[in-house]
Amino acid sequence: CYIQNCPIGGKRSVLDAEIRKCIPCGPGNRGQCFGPNICCGEEFGCYFGTSETQRCLEENYLPSPCEAGGKPCGTNGARCAAPGICCSDESCTLDSACNLEFVFS
Amino acid sequence: CYIQNCPIGGKRSVLDAEIRKCIPCGPGNRGQCFGPNICCGEEFGCYFGTSETQRCLEENYLPSPCEAGGKPCGTNGARCAAPGICCSDESCTLDSACNLEFVFS
Repeated sequence: CYIQNCPIGGKRSVLDAEIRKCIPCGPGNRGQCFGPNICCGEEFGCYFGTSETQRCLEENYLPSPCEAGGKPCGTNGARCAAPGICCSDESCTLDSACNLEFVFS
Repeated sequence: CYIQNCPIGGKRSVLDAEIRKCIPCGPGNRGQCFGPNICCGEEFGCYFGTSETQRCLEENYLPSPCEAGGKPCGTNGARCAAPGICCSDESCTLDSACNLEFVFS
């Protein structure tokens, strides 16, 4: 499940040490699911509610929590998702704080 | 230009009567640019900073203001962009207020 919306009382409490990366998605599976409807990759940007994000619904059914993205940005636990783009599990915003994130990665 | 960010002192003052739809984009040009990096269509969802949004940069160079989307939602002049998705010119958010928007259109 996406760490921001794992079922309360579930694995959420056990987690710190065991947070994994959210499932891959997008062209060549080179992106990562950020939420049930959001798939982003450094090379291709973000898909929001498109056919590329269908797979990301599956993450809801995995019991262990996952986290996606680079450095924190914006609010609501959002993280840099692609150059200049900051996403939480339910929104994406242009954010210049994410411009440099990927230059050095 | 996108009405939210047309140059101040430009056509922005003249507009009310002459707001046009923002330029088309996406698969089959069946979507609409919502911002320089956002392309959404009822049938396909939203692209954010992807190859599908490249065209949307051109709207910045058109002097007359444009507006995209259906009914107002969220904040910052955002509008329903696709089923369940609310976008401004610089962000997209899941919004159940946009779920029904497209059922009847």
